[in-house]
This record gives sequence, structure tokens and C-alpha cells, in this order.
Amino acid sequence: MSYIKDNFLLTNKTAYKLYYDYAKNMPIFDYHCHLPEKQILENKPFSDIYEIWLSGDHYKWRLMRNFGVDEKYITGDASNKEKFLAYCKTLGTAFGNPLYHWSQVELQDFFNCELEINEENAEQIWDWCNEYIAINNITPQKLIEGSNVSHLFTTNEIFDDLSIFPEIAKKGYKFKVIPAFRADKLMGVESPAYKTFMAKLEALTGKISCLDDLEKAIESRLQDFIKVGTTASDIAVEHVYAIADKADANAVFEKALRGGIPDEAEAEVFKGYLTYFLFKLYAKYHIATELHLGATRNNNSVMFEKIGADTGYDGMSDAEDLELMRRLFDRLNSENSLPKTIVFNLNPKMNSEIVVLLGEFQSSEAKGKMQYGPAWWFFDNKVGMERHLQDLTATGHIGAFVGMLTDSRSFLSYPRHHYFRRILCNYFGTMMERGEMTQDIEFVGKVVKDISYNNAIEYLNVK
Amino acid sequence: MSYIKDNFLLTNKTAYKLYYDYAKNMPIFDYHCHLPEKQILENKPFSDIYEIWLSGDHYKWRLMRNFGVDEKYITGDASNKEKFLAYCKTLGTAFGNPLYHWSQVELQDFFNCELEINEENAEQIWDWCNEYIAINNITPQKLIEGSNVSHLFTTNEIFDDLSIFPEIAKKGYKFKVIPAFRADKLMGVESPAYKTFMAKLEALTGKISCLDDLEKAIESRLQDFIKVGTTASDIAVEHVYAIADKADANAVFEKALRGGIPDEAEAEVFKGYLTYFLFKLYAKYHIATELHLGATRNNNSVMFEKIGADTGYDGMSDAEDLELMRRLFDRLNSENSLPKTIVFNLNPKMNSEIVVLLGEFQSSEAKGKMQYGPAWWFFDNKVGMERHLQDLTATGHIGAFVGMLTDSRSFLSYPRHHYFRRILCNYFGTMMERGEMTQDIEFVGKVVKDISYNNAIEYLNVK
Amino acid sequence: MSYIKDNFLLTNKTAYKLYYDYAKNMPIFDYHCHLPEKQILENKPFSDIYEIWLSGDHYKWRLMRNFGVDEKYITGDASNKEKFLAYCKTLGTAFGNPLYHWSQVELQDFFNCELEINEENAEQIWDWCNEYIAINNITPQKLIEGSNVSHLFTTNEIFDDLSIFPEIAKKGYKFKVIPAFRADKLMGVESPAYKTFMAKLEALTGKISCLDDLEKAIESRLQDFIKVGTTASDIAVEHVYAIADKADANAVFEKALRGGIPDEAEAEVFKGYLTYFLFKLYAKYHIATELHLGATRNNNSVMFEKIGADTGYDGMSDAEDLELMRRLFDRLNSENSLPKTIVFNLNPKMNSEIVVLLGEFQSSEAKGKMQYGPAWWFFDNKVGMERHLQDLTATGHIGAFVGMLTDSRSFLSYPRHHYFRRILCNYFGTMMERGEMTQDIEFVGKVVKDISYNNAIEYLNVK
Repeated sequence: MSYIKDNFLLTNKTAYKLYYDYAKNMPIFDYHCHLPEKQILENKPFSDIYEIWLSGDHYKWRLMRNFGVDEKYITGDASNKEKFLAYCKTLGTAFGNPLYHWSQVELQDFFNCELEINEENAEQIWDWCNEYIAINNITPQKLIEGSNVSHLFTTNEIFDDLSIFPEIAKKGYKFKVIPAFRADKLMGVESPAYKTFMAKLEALTGKISCLDDLEKAIESRLQDFIKVGTTASDIAVEHVYAIADKADANAVFEKALRGGIPDEAEAEVFKGYLTYFLFKLYAKYHIATELHLGATRNNNSVMFEKIGADTGYDGMSDAEDLELMRRLFDRLNSENSLPKTIVFNLNPKMNSEIVVLLGEFQSSEAKGKMQYGPAWWFFDNKVGMERHLQDLTATGHIGAFVGMLTDSRSFLSYPRHHYFRRILCNYFGTMMERGEMTQDIEFVGKVVKDISYNNAIEYLNVK
Repeated sequence: MSYIKDNFLLTNKTAYKLYYDYAKNMPIFDYHCHLPEKQILENKPFSDIYEIWLSGDHYKWRLMRNFGVDEKYITGDASNKEKFLAYCKTLGTAFGNPLYHWSQVELQDFFNCELEINEENAEQIWDWCNEYIAINNITPQKLIEGSNVSHLFTTNEIFDDLSIFPEIAKKGYKFKVIPAFRADKLMGVESPAYKTFMAKLEALTGKISCLDDLEKAIESRLQDFIKVGTTASDIAVEHVYAIADKADANAVFEKALRGGIPDEAEAEVFKGYLTYFLFKLYAKYHIATELHLGATRNNNSVMFEKIGADTGYDGMSDAEDLELMRRLFDRLNSENSLPKTIVFNLNPKMNSEIVVLLGEFQSSEAKGKMQYGPAWWFFDNKVGMERHLQDLTATGHIGAFVGMLTDSRSFLSYPRHHYFRRILCNYFGTMMERGEMTQDIEFVGKVVKDISYNNAIEYLNVK
Repeated sequence: MSYIKDNFLLTNKTAYKLYYDYAKNMPIFDYHCHLPEKQILENKPFSDIYEIWLSGDHYKWRLMRNFGVDEKYITGDASNKEKFLAYCKTLGTAFGNPLYHWSQVELQDFFNCELEINEENAEQIWDWCNEYIAINNITPQKLIEGSNVSHLFTTNEIFDDLSIFPEIAKKGYKFKVIPAFRADKLMGVESPAYKTFMAKLEALTGKISCLDDLEKAIESRLQDFIKVGTTASDIAVEHVYAIADKADANAVFEKALRGGIPDEAEAEVFKGYLTYFLFKLYAKYHIATELHLGATRNNNSVMFEKIGADTGYDGMSDAEDLELMRRLFDRLNSENSLPKTIVFNLNPKMNSEIVVLLGEFQSSEAKGKMQYGPAWWFFDNKVGMERHLQDLTATGHIGAFVGMLTDSRSFLSYPRHHYFRRILCNYFGTMMERGEMTQDIEFVGKVVKDISYNNAIEYLNVK
């Protein structure tokens, strides 16, 4: 039977009390995820444990590859069941990996399955979960409501269909679904698909012939997003680019419009300017900006050719660009155009330096205006979260922290909020038991509630 | 009441014994701080808790900004009491931040105030401390002597008035005040204030028309410093610069003398040469060099315009310059001109690489000739110190470590030495209890005493 | 008496059980070391504790220098006994340094000496160990067999004499000695000794006039190595170089053959191409590649002049070259020529980014085809290993890990395998006791055995 008990990750009584009395029952605000809003609207029941749990989850695929599993059993032509068995075998000895915990918790929380995941139990788990799914008619709505989610932000490209959101609102779900605005596809001026993206945008906003037109189109779409509730935006870049002149950026843009493919330097000019423009725009509309920094994409050319993007071949950059980030924020701040910003960093070695940098640009515009986002992706694990909390508290103010999100494509990821809350409660509880902070558990409990939920609600200004 | 008990940071009996039997009663040698020598000489009583505790302390200001406090209550026109209350509220939930500990300890140690710092208690603390100050006639001398300080090094620019030091010596204080020599203002050749600085120096040493003159002036001032007891110098740079040719540096210098503003590249040439020159000079006079590395200054242009330097807007560099440091030390070593050096690094990720580099240039000139200085500034906190000790011991020799300093502008910072000593004793005590080092507590206690005090006295060669 | 007890590094009962029931009795496969094969063949008894323990061990020398010991007592003309006493004094207070543990364990394991190493006991230890050596006729064979070693890989240059290996095989030792293939001397095209190295190679393979000839010579020597059992190769570079064109590399090579000294840029071109060539060659012959990354050599010019290489003056690079490593592996992978690779990284801050990068290039060719090698050199210590395990498990798969090696020049280093195993067992044991992983100790024990020995045997394909 599963090793996970009710004191999971809670190493002392104070931590236990903090989690169960203060954190556990707080709702979830998942302020950044990649759930498909259409699937939420359609709300079709899932067919089997493979579909709901393994299909499309490149975290799991990657772990299998790290263990030497043949691609046949990952994205190949093996049966769903064979793939499931291969994953269970892989997971059995993946001690210390976050999936080792997440997967076990997901089986318990969503399928009431207490069997330990390993090769020996795999068949039995397969049968149990599929029977559970067949009997219980599991839908997206059920999974989300069962997780006590009050709000979630999907991540939508500028040209996405926004009509789905009012439709979802009419469904009477107990949670709200709101799009976060993203213009990343318009940043990728060097992409062969750029003209396709522009065409999609033009279909919504009219002909775009120059950077001025693009800016107007972006602003107009942002206004459309705001009408359906948007209060957050998202920018994902491999690293921060130098701010470029608009004229230079316009030249690159027009080249792309004419069908040219800008080279790397030109693309950086365009991205450098557009990042700056977007931040200013978000400031104008009081839209919080989530800046995702340091992911390198599609690094295995062979597999990218074969199975495309988001398949487990992304990585972590080691690019040091603190000075560029500093200049960007200082320029925006000097122009009174620095929006509330959450920086998500992928490389844990950069924790301290980014927390310190953000401290240089705080203001009373918000409690924790410049946020160091929670441990993200490769860094979203127990050790990563513990280091994140240590580094954030050491030079920042933990009381202002907006806390956890899933960043996930899966409807089963909400337990990660509780994984975080347990680690947070254990962090505080341990300091309390050691006499390193106040013994007033009510007082600390309030901070736990704030970090679990209230701070994010306030910061992202949702109702 | 305050959560801080006598076993604060001491998680086991051996650690407790090490601290109380060996560390606690050792005097303090604060070998790098920014206390104003004039204030020590004048020795005027403080007026209220705001003046002594909050005014001028940009660590505290920064924490308040991280929590979203309005600048009015930080450096603005709110009353002293309002600012005090705002800080207490901020601190109440700053769990894990070093100020959370430091501030609480300072109230206990200097004002006998046991109230926990938070919004609720703030008024009461304000009254208590101010009454305490009024009754007890708190002066700099009292604070320093009460902290069992034997020596402290102020940090003085080359043109500072040295006559204050013999005057302090005549006062009969129980501690000695000695200036550390600093030529940083002369390094900043690109600064608009450079000519003003040069004028101050010329007033003391005569006309300076070229780099040769400057070198002579610097040497002559160093001799003046040595007459009042100086045995240490200080160099603070954002990163180590390449060693430049003297002729090139001279050209830049003469440009600056003629009123030109050297560009960034020219400034680096000058700094690269001058750093090298200073190290050689310090070696000649057996002056230990404290190299402060990696601070970026005044990063928020708006706030720098408004309230100037040293206001909480500095940051941490991520510049990687190990190879430049290696070349500098190797060149000096090859010329038999590498002085005893303490490297203070601001970015904790660079711990191991710098400790290892220093190990390449040790010699029997001193026990631990090349020192990795204690965790500094953004890194001067519990986690930072623990990592520092781990990283230092792993590839260096802890027995040679010169230990803690405050680097502070405040007369209330001496408890940081005990904060460090507790962490040190807990580090050793924990290893002892785990059977990872000798069980001979006398033997370990001697090392604790050395790191707390004796090593620094010996290394910095004070009497 | 020594502080080291049987529960050394095992902080709980589960950890203790894992080590004693599963790890302790597994044989050792030391898949990368620098033992001289000739000494193994000759098998002469050692003369005294200095010769066997201190002579040639630059880790120990470096520690002494960090403590301020005069070079006379390190590599100078002091007597063996004086040097021994100086080392014991140095070690006594080197708490937290790996040598503090290693040295104590070595005395216990190999000389049955339980005395704690410090200044006071030094004379007695000297006498005890020398008497022990005199009585017990200590030879390389005895030390290796006594450590339960089944296989060891020496590291051999391409032109080394391979006839020693069959001779060793005939001796009837209980362990096998196999050379790992290394072509590093051929990489160093800028070295003044390059022509000497080429001459040695030509003596074995015939005249080399161009890069094509060199490639053929390398392949022919690799075939010779394979005949004596080679299944692994080694490449040590300060950082990964960009892949260069063969024609450009050939031009640099021919310049060197003509007696020219390539400049730094030219040398990088050559190394960039040759690294790529070697990887392809190793893939062709299914030879695992051990890539040692980030050591900077001979950094103290004065001491290099005086006492040469491998004397304790090497260091750790901070060069960030992730993108170059990514391009190299992606290119090789695209050409179906990426061999099994173990990356050894010297700078612990780069753990996560390299583990993640390796995850981008896994395949079912082997369980853990792309390995993040164990904590190496400056990083081979308790804290380093613990961080390594945390970082490896967080984004990799611990079950596939090939585990420890000594990388040592000393016959006394095998306890480091047990040092690692204790830390590994403590890592798992602690997670088990905390309820963070399965409670099935048999199951975990099997993984411990795999990481201790079986995975390396399987991965490196030895019999």
C-alpha cells in the first residue's frame, strides 16, 4: 500500500497543525496553467487512466527516457496498457523525483487507489483506475470542483477564440475560467509559421502593414481579453533581450511581413522592442505580467522532427542576463510603466540574484509588486521549493508571496498546490519548533492562508 | 513575548555548550564596518528608537518596500513614530529574513525589550524603548563597550581626516578604533565627482598631474594611515577587471584630470591598472586587502534621483570573472606582490569556485593567507552562513577562517557576531553529535575561539 | 580514539540497515582512476606510511597550504616524518573537509589504527602505521583485493604501453585491470610538448602528415585498446568547444606538425573538431565516453615552474557553455553517433542544468544512456554528494545511476566508495523514515545494490 500518510512532508506537529488547520481547506487559485478551455466547456468524461494520466504528459515521458524505456512505450505504437505498465515500472524506483510523489498522490486523490506504484502492482492499478473511471463518470468539471478550485487562468494566444469563456461562465460551474493574455507567437518573428500567426491576428483586427499597426492590433485584442475578465498576461523568453529602437524593430517586422526570415540578431532586436512594448501596454491596463524566463525549446532535433514540440525535449538555460533584466525594469520604472510582474525562473542557481534584483523595483502599488514566482518546471520539486523558500525569505518578504500554480496541461495537477502548501507549512512549522520564529500559530496560520490563496486573489485582482 | 530563547539557533546540547563555554565571552573584533568615527568621538546620546534603529538603515527600508509599504513611511515625511510602526508591521511576518532575527535580538540586547515585534505590539515597543533610551543615556561608547568589542576598523577614504583617531585613542574607551584604507573614490574615474575627490587628495598631498603623481600620493596617504594603526585596506569593485598597462591607464587618468569623462571601456582600463597597483602597494606594506566583489549600485534611477545612494537599491551581480581574478592573483604572486587577501563575494552560487581559486594561491605567509570572507550583505543570513560554512569547509580549511564582521553603519549590529557564532557552534555541534568529527569538546572549543576572535586578531596583526 | 563508529554517516536505522544489508558487501567497480598499471603489475611492498599516504597526494598538500603550512613540509626538503606530522596537525582541525573523514577511515581500514588524527597523536600514529606496514608486507594487490574490487579502469594515453595489461591478467589477481582510452594529449595542439606526443604515436602507428592520418592512427590505437578489454574512453576539457570544420582543424594541425604553436583560437578550432570526431569514433565502437568538464590546470605559475603539474594548483571553471554542449550532443545524435556518455562536472552550481540537458538526449540504447557522473574532485565531499543526489533525483532517474568511482592516484582511496554508499543509504533511509518513499526495504535494497555496483557493470559492459 502507498507510503503516503496524512503527515506526508510534515515532519513535526506544528507543521501538521498549520497544514490541516489553515492551509488544507483554502480554495485553489491556479493563476497560470495550460488547460484547454474547450475541454472544460465540453466537459466530456474521460475514457481510461492512460488518457487522463499519461497521454500528453511530457514530464512522465522524460522520466521514462531517463530510465532507458524504448520510445515505443512512450509515444510509439505500444498499446495504452503497455505504456501504462512501462510508466509504473519506471516510477517504482524514481525515488526523489517529483513525479514519484505526484503520481502516487494523484491516484489516491482522484481514483481512491492506495496501491503503491511499481512494476508488480501495475496491472492491478490499471484495472482499479479504469473501473473507477467507468463507474464514476469522471469529467473535467468534476476534477476541478473536487479540487476546490475557485479560479483558473488559462494561457491564450492573442488570436484565440474568446467566445468560449462567456459560454463556460454560463455553465454554472463552481469555478471561474479566465484567459491570461499571451503574445508569444507574435514575438517569434523568425518562425516559419509567423505569417500564419499574423493572418490569424489580421482576421480579428484588420490588415497589419507595420509595427504601428501591430501595436494597435495587440492593444485592441488586449481590450477584448479584458472584456472577458483578463487581469494577467504572460511572456515566455529564453532570456531577457536588450531594449531595441522601434525603428529597428519595425524594419525587422516589415522584413518578416514581406516573407523574409530574420536572422538571430534581427529577431532579438524585434523581441527586445516588443517585450518592452508589451510591458508598457500591460502597465497601462494594470495587467500583471508573468515573465517566464530561461526555457530552451525542442533541443533534440531528431525527436522534434518525429514528434514535434512539448514532448519532453526542452531544457534549462544558463544564460546570465541579470543586467539586461535590470535595465528593462529600470527603463520601464523610469517611464512610470513597470506593471506588477511575476518572474518565473527556471535555473535554481539564479534564485538569490533575481530576488535581490526584484527588490530594487518594489513600490507600494501592490504588496509584493515584483514577485519571484514559485519554483517552476525542472525546479518544481521538493528540494527546489525548499531552496526557493529559503532564498526568497532570506532577501525578500515571504508574507507578500503569491504562492503556487500548476503550469500544467493536466486536470490532475491540483494536488501540486497541496504539495506546495505542505512544504510551506513544514518550512514555517520547523522554524517555529526550533524557536526561530513566533510561536503564535494563529498569526502564522493567517500568513499560510494568504500565501495559499488570498495574496494571489488580491494581487491578480480577480473577484 | 519574544520567541528567542537562550538556545536560539543551537539545536543540540553540544552546540549549546560550544557557544556558552567557548564563543559567548570572546571579545569582538569588527574588522570591517562603516561606523562614523566622528560619532564615536563625539559620543552624543541617542534621542529615540527611530534614530538609533531605523534612520539610515537601508536593509530595513528594502524589506518594507518588498512588503509594499508606501515610501512616505520609509524615507518620506511620515513621523518617526509612524515609520517605526510601519516597520514593526512589516517585520511581523518577515519569517526567514535575517532582519526578523536581528531586530528582535537588538531590542532584547540593547533595550531589554522582550516584546515580539509585530503590528499589535508596535506602540508598546515604541514607548518601552524610548523610555529606556531616555533613562539610560545610550551613547555609541556604551553600545560598543556593552558588546565587548576590543577593536573595530572603520572604512576611510584616502582623503579622510585622520586626526580623529588619535583623539578617540585619548578618550580612554575600552576599545580601539582603527581606519581601514580605501581608495575607491580614486578608482571611479568616470564619476562626475572625480575632480572633487582629486582636489581633496591634492589638498593633502600636493598637485597631481599624472598617474605617477597619483601613485605617490596614494603611497604617502597609506603611510599616514599606517601611522594611526592601519593594517587593512578595502577595495570594492563590481567585478575584477583585466590588468591594464600603466601607459593606457595614465592616458585615461589624464583625460579625467583635463575634465573629460572616460567611457566605460576607458574606466575599466584605469580600474584594472589601479587595482593591480593597489594590491602591490598593500603587499609592500604588509597591509591585508579586503576585496568586496559583486555589488551593483543605485540600480533604480528614479529613486537614486530622489533620495541618493545607500538607500536600498543596490543589487547582486551575476558576472562571472573567475579567470580575471585568477590572472590578477597569479600575476601578483609571480611578482611576489600578493598581499594577504580576504575576498567578500555577494553571490552565493560562486562560493565553491572562489574558495577553490583562493586555494591556488595560499602560502605560509599567514594561516589562511587567502581568505574567503564571511557571508556578506544579501547573503548574510542563516541559510547564507550555513552554505558558506559548508562550502568553505568542503574545499578550504575552516581552522584558518578569520570569521565574522558587521559591515554595518549601525551601532546595534554587534549581535550579528553572536548570530554567526551560534550558527558556527551549531554547525560543529551537529557534526559532533552525528559522529562526523572529534568528540573532544575542548579541542573544538579552541577552534571556535579562534574563529570567533583570535584568527582575525592574528591575521590583521592588531595589538 | 577515532570518532568514526559503525553508524558513520547513517543517521537512522533504515539507513543503517540499507548500508549493512545491501551496500557493504557489494564489490567495487572503480570505473575511472589514475592508478599506475605498472605499479599494480610489479606489486612491490610499500616502505612507510608517508610513501603510501602522503607522497604524491595533492589533495592533502592543498589542505596544508590552506592552513598556512610552509612548503618545506609539503613538497620541500623536510623529512618524511616531519611532513607526516605537519599533515596530522593540519588535519586535526579541518572539520567538514572530506580529507578529515577520508584520512581517518583510511588509517582504520588499511592499518587498523584507531587513533584520532591530530597534532598530539601524530607521533604515535607514525609509529603504529610504520610498524603495521613492516609486519604486514602491504602491496598494491593486497590493498585492492582487501577492498573487494572486482574491476578497475586505469586511464591511459593513446600511446601508452598496452602489454602490461595482459601481463597483469596472468598474475591471477582477484580483480581485473582494464585501460580506458584517452586522447587528451593529442587534443593539446598548443602544447610545446605536442611534437613529442605525436612522435610517440607515430612510433606505434606510422607517419602522420595530416588530420586524416591522425584519425586513422587514433582509430587503430582504439582497436588495440579494445583488444585488451577497453569499453570506456575519457575526454577532459576545460569547457565544451564549438564543433569546427575538419578543413579548419586540419590547417591548425598541419601548422602544429610544422612546428608552429597555434594560438588560443586555433587551438579551440582543433579541439572542437577533435572532440566531435572522438565522440563519433566512440559511438562507432560502442565505447562509453567519460567527459570531464571544467578543470583549469596549473593556475599558480610560480609553483608550476617549481614543482610541475598535479601538485594541488588546479581549479574550477565558471565557464557557462551549456549551449555548446547541447549543440554537440544534438549534432552527434542527429548523425546517430552519440555514444553512451557520462558527464563529470566540477562546478556544483551547474548540477541541475546539466542533468536536465542530459535528459534531452536519452534513449533506450542503455538504462541511463546519458549519465550525470558522481560528484567529482572539489565537489567530491559529503555536501557535494548530497546536493548531487538531490539534484540528480529531482530531474533525472536515480535508479539508472552508475554511481561512484575514485578518480584517484592512491591505492588507499577505495573507502570513498563506501563513503558514497553510506551517503546514498542515508539519503534513501531518511526519505523512507520520513514517509517520502516506499517502505519496502528489499525493493530499495535492490536499487542500492544496482547503484553501488550492478549499474556500472551493465553500463560499461564488462565481464
